[in-house]
Amino acid sequence: MSGDFVKVAIVGSTGYGGVELIRFLLEHPKVEIVSVISASSSGAPITDGFPHLINLVVQNLDGVNVQEIAAKADVVFTATPSGVSGKLVPQLVEAGLKVIDLSGDFRIKDGAVYEEWYKHDAPGNDLLQKAVYGLSEVYGEKVKDEQLISNPGCYPTATLLGLIPAVKAGWIDPATLIIDAKSGVSGAGRGTSLTAHYAEINENFKAYKVNKHQHIPEIEQVLTDIHGSPVTVTFTTHLAPMTRGIMSTMYATLTGSHTNEELVELYKQFYEGRRFVRIRPAGQWPATKEVFGSNYCDIGFAVDARTNRVTIVSVIDNVVKGAAGQAIQNLNLMMGWDETLGLKNAPVYP
Amino acid sequence: MSGDFVKVAIVGSTGYGGVELIRFLLEHPKVEIVSVISASSSGAPITDGFPHLINLVVQNLDGVNVQEIAAKADVVFTATPSGVSGKLVPQLVEAGLKVIDLSGDFRIKDGAVYEEWYKHDAPGNDLLQKAVYGLSEVYGEKVKDEQLISNPGCYPTATLLGLIPAVKAGWIDPATLIIDAKSGVSGAGRGTSLTAHYAEINENFKAYKVNKHQHIPEIEQVLTDIHGSPVTVTFTTHLAPMTRGIMSTMYATLTGSHTNEELVELYKQFYEGRRFVRIRPAGQWPATKEVFGSNYCDIGFAVDARTNRVTIVSVIDNVVKGAAGQAIQNLNLMMGWDETLGLKNAPVYP
Amino acid sequence: MSGDFVKVAIVGSTGYGGVELIRFLLEHPKVEIVSVISASSSGAPITDGFPHLINLVVQNLDGVNVQEIAAKADVVFTATPSGVSGKLVPQLVEAGLKVIDLSGDFRIKDGAVYEEWYKHDAPGNDLLQKAVYGLSEVYGEKVKDEQLISNPGCYPTATLLGLIPAVKAGWIDPATLIIDAKSGVSGAGRGTSLTAHYAEINENFKAYKVNKHQHIPEIEQVLTDIHGSPVTVTFTTHLAPMTRGIMSTMYATLTGSHTNEELVELYKQFYEGRRFVRIRPAGQWPATKEVFGSNYCDIGFAVDARTNRVTIVSVIDNVVKGAAGQAIQNLNLMMGWDETLGLKNAPVYP
Amino acid sequence: MSGDFVKVAIVGSTGYGGVELIRFLLEHPKVEIVSVISASSSGAPITDGFPHLINLVVQNLDGVNVQEIAAKADVVFTATPSGVSGKLVPQLVEAGLKVIDLSGDFRIKDGAVYEEWYKHDAPGNDLLQKAVYGLSEVYGEKVKDEQLISNPGCYPTATLLGLIPAVKAGWIDPATLIIDAKSGVSGAGRGTSLTAHYAEINENFKAYKVNKHQHIPEIEQVLTDIHGSPVTVTFTTHLAPMTRGIMSTMYATLTGSHTNEELVELYKQFYEGRRFVRIRPAGQWPATKEVFGSNYCDIGFAVDARTNRVTIVSVIDNVVKGAAGQAIQNLNLMMGWDETLGLKNAPVYP
Repeated sequence: MSGDFVKVAIVGSTGYGGVELIRFLLEHPKVEIVSVISASSSGAPITDGFPHLINLVVQNLDGVNVQEIAAKADVVFTATPSGVSGKLVPQLVEAGLKVIDLSGDFRIKDGAVYEEWYKHDAPGNDLLQKAVYGLSEVYGEKVKDEQLISNPGCYPTATLLGLIPAVKAGWIDPATLIIDAKSGVSGAGRGTSLTAHYAEINENFKAYKVNKHQHIPEIEQVLTDIHGSPVTVTFTTHLAPMTRGIMSTMYATLTGSHTNEELVELYKQFYEGRRFVRIRPAGQWPATKEVFGSNYCDIGFAVDARTNRVTIVSVIDNVVKGAAGQAIQNLNLMMGWDETLGLKNAPVYP
Repeated sequence: MSGDFVKVAIVGSTGYGGVELIRFLLEHPKVEIVSVISASSSGAPITDGFPHLINLVVQNLDGVNVQEIAAKADVVFTATPSGVSGKLVPQLVEAGLKVIDLSGDFRIKDGAVYEEWYKHDAPGNDLLQKAVYGLSEVYGEKVKDEQLISNPGCYPTATLLGLIPAVKAGWIDPATLIIDAKSGVSGAGRGTSLTAHYAEINENFKAYKVNKHQHIPEIEQVLTDIHGSPVTVTFTTHLAPMTRGIMSTMYATLTGSHTNEELVELYKQFYEGRRFVRIRPAGQWPATKEVFGSNYCDIGFAVDARTNRVTIVSVIDNVVKGAAGQAIQNLNLMMGWDETLGLKNAPVYP
Repeated sequence: MSGDFVKVAIVGSTGYGGVELIRFLLEHPKVEIVSVISASSSGAPITDGFPHLINLVVQNLDGVNVQEIAAKADVVFTATPSGVSGKLVPQLVEAGLKVIDLSGDFRIKDGAVYEEWYKHDAPGNDLLQKAVYGLSEVYGEKVKDEQLISNPGCYPTATLLGLIPAVKAGWIDPATLIIDAKSGVSGAGRGTSLTAHYAEINENFKAYKVNKHQHIPEIEQVLTDIHGSPVTVTFTTHLAPMTRGIMSTMYATLTGSHTNEELVELYKQFYEGRRFVRIRPAGQWPATKEVFGSNYCDIGFAVDARTNRVTIVSVIDNVVKGAAGQAIQNLNLMMGWDETLGLKNAPVYP
Repeated sequence: MSGDFVKVAIVGSTGYGGVELIRFLLEHPKVEIVSVISASSSGAPITDGFPHLINLVVQNLDGVNVQEIAAKADVVFTATPSGVSGKLVPQLVEAGLKVIDLSGDFRIKDGAVYEEWYKHDAPGNDLLQKAVYGLSEVYGEKVKDEQLISNPGCYPTATLLGLIPAVKAGWIDPATLIIDAKSGVSGAGRGTSLTAHYAEINENFKAYKVNKHQHIPEIEQVLTDIHGSPVTVTFTTHLAPMTRGIMSTMYATLTGSHTNEELVELYKQFYEGRRFVRIRPAGQWPATKEVFGSNYCDIGFAVDARTNRVTIVSVIDNVVKGAAGQAIQNLNLMMGWDETLGLKNAPVYP
């Protein structure tokens, strides 16, 4: 690294993940944005498509040129679609850049599993194995000094942070796991389609990709790692009429007898010292708006004595903790900085 | 009954259930609205509070006076809060009126169970036993010629219509039932509270009353009846940022091996001839907007071979099929009319 | 006309205007839908794209074939884009069909003005002159027995109904007219674009096409006709984060001294006997939700003694009174029926 | 002032203005929040009502006690309702505190005018005259070293920033000014009422307080000051179905002949060096979402040669630039700091 600031480039600056990276990195005390990159809009001011950045970002968009990126930047965020990252990231890594990838291309360690769920070719196995899965509060130690971080998916982040302490402690039976997840529309990106049309989404609640979402193998891979033997989950995704926010409502049978208070204590210990996970007092339920625009993940519990099941509710802002925020948290961890740099802001409420 | 039209009165005309009854009954070919009644706003034109009814309803609101109601009306809809109906309905029944009650006061047959979940006194046992539970497509035959119909709750309607055929056929294990339900805000009524404040609800998704919702015993009572032995469910309620609509996403382990197509066929047979339940083709998921403003309940399925579970999605408009629409459907059944009278309109889309 | 029902075809059935025509025509006592037509989706069931119509419309979509339409139908609604109608309507008229056109192609009598604002060629002058402008409450008498009705635009409908009585009476100075209009997103149709993307529209209020909207010459043409000499207006369009609804807030200097009550009286007299225009009492303001899903246009006033200006607020549902509803109202007038047939439903509230 | 940080207290911490002050002040490099105060919830943790602040604010709410405030704080923000501030602020000023008042109580210099529009008693004349009107970009110089700042209203901020350069330059005729303003619901505060009920606001656009809003005399007072002779405006307020955001669409007749480009240049010069006002290029219109969550005011123009009128569009986030953000900007100016301290964040998009 040269100079006082780490120099970062953002590939995919004209997507929602990209502009959210910009919003946070502008406030980051140790980072300078040296290039905002877009394959589709190269040459134009980014403020043409995003006037909210007027006065804040004066750069024109650059094209995707690995040598130019390598000449300017120390670290690259690739907020590119699945399939694109798989081809671009190897070149960036080869050029000696540190990479934090926000696509899903480097999350699944088994290329065959990747291809089954993503429906296109997996990246090469070497890089798949090299990539560290950056679920910051769980694998943060592994992120430090690595070159390639695979940033977790939005649904897996909310889901895994809500499940891992209980799975690791053996308090819930992973075979009984049912995950009912809900997301705002920004999770599907800025691309135009009928399923993103305001008049189709507003005043509507819908299920989609039931049992087929590509985040299922990502969740199972991590839970299997934590549990020590294979875990298979039922996972349903829904679209809620809102822009940001994910809630995972998760159901599992308790292996023993535990109270809400004991679960709160278990989770508080697990996440001790981690600012961005907030365990709610027994009987209090988090709502997505309570983390809007911030890097927090809030978690609440309800044990049901009648069924011996626990219901766990976990919420994040999909664009922040589920994408750009956690990516910056991973940058901080990679660099050995305080993980909260540039991310301390309170949620925007209301 | 006298004359060509059945004369109906609506107690609770200034709630959302009340004005929705008015919207549909204005189009009903065999009904005349003879009195719109409100305990709180008696004497004022209903259009003071609901200007959308200008030119459509010219009556002033009447007060709650059982003798006056009996003098004018043949049938009364009581769209009154739980606790109020419990006291009023016995007087209306005593006065010889037919009553369709939209509160929850006459749904739970066991007074002790009622009091545990509703937190106040149950109505007398005689009337509890007399009331027929009006889930039209399931208990429609029992409704005919009865005097007191207890109209089902909004969540139970969506949930039970989605579960009963599979439970009855023994295709799913009721012990594994997990119900993740989502509702629009109108379900909580027109009363003002912080939890209904626009700025708190908009761009927000939240869980509430987890494991404690009073619709749980209602669902269990019916499933127990269908199944033949006690059924206990896990049931979670969420508030979605929309005005109307309920989705129940339901999970259960299959007892045998069944395909989506077989489930579609089972449900189509069960609901044969019933216009308001629409079974979606295998692989298609209903959305709440697709029933907005109408009396339809749409149901879809996804069998997951990996877990041997089925996911069932059921949607209704909570104000229509979950309240006013089904109440009118019950009126039709009670009178021996075609159940669709006054209810044939297509959903409003978009 | 043959048989008991008038046979109608709908070209453009897969747009929002088209499905709304279907929703209302299904309830119309004198109409049979004989063909739902879409240039882009011919051959498929309409319920593939619009599952809300399951059980209600079982027809497959037909292609655009003038001879087939003429063989089946008496009347055609052309809910086609501007430019398409201009080419299709002459053929339908030539084939002897009655046509109600929902595009803007036949509204502007002066082809040169059309081309200036619409930016493409105008239809031939003969048909432009033949077309009757179907602002039902103003030109309803002229619609009867005509063959080609040009259905008014959404903004002009709300605006003109709110201005005409005062302009005709000479109570306001047309030179001072400023019209600030707001619309829901459905007004722009079902086409996908970034400007219809949920995440871009939600929690957003924006201006667009300021001074350049193609509805400006339509408004001016009618006001000029009413006033008797040329009227030029300032007209601004805004997009509100909602699906349906238009509000025109209109400002003008009073020529004399008039009270709110006098304006109410003037408008009530002008619209006497017309069910779909509702003049609000002095001091009461209509809201778009109060006409949602219905054919009503509600109008309110505020005279400001300090400035001698009047503020007029007019609201409609853009998909109903601003498109499909008024088109059916024009069908009714064309056929000599009661103008309210099939359109009597109350607004959907909430 | 003692120590490194200025110590601030916030009265009215449990309103939307209060929690927004907290959100920004937590990031302010020169401020310490020493007391969060609420008349109604004293003693409870603020996170009981605002769980989004968990981990961020650990203080309990204090009661309103002038002596305690004076003992702890240097500066007080009074985000209290109109009427309450009028009584509290004199005591705080008397106790030697610097006060930035967010109510409207000290904006109108003429007590009689205040009472006509606010419908209750005005504060004493001495303090009315002492209070400096903190429209930062216009009266910022006057704010420095003052003790009592009256923070502008949300509508006046958007409106005045959009009008003042043109009025001051004499380019528009103030007698022709018509202001059509739209606001999100948060502007009405967190109090519960039917007019804030989600089901009444969602999918609704409504006018309110037409010609009667208390921000009218505030706008006129400032425009009169700028223009040099009395200005009277037509001002209409609307409620849009969104949480945050104000747009003022403003119409005036040009006194001479000016192009959009000239207006852009005039405004850029007027606001030179002021980061928070962004003048859009000719032909580009700002939208409320483009300033969401930030202290920006964005302004665009359209001259209409046909009418010789200009349309000016000005947008702000009502909770930030219209309340808490400008209040902090005024704190910065009062202290002689860079006006952007703590306020630099980009808008949250989408």
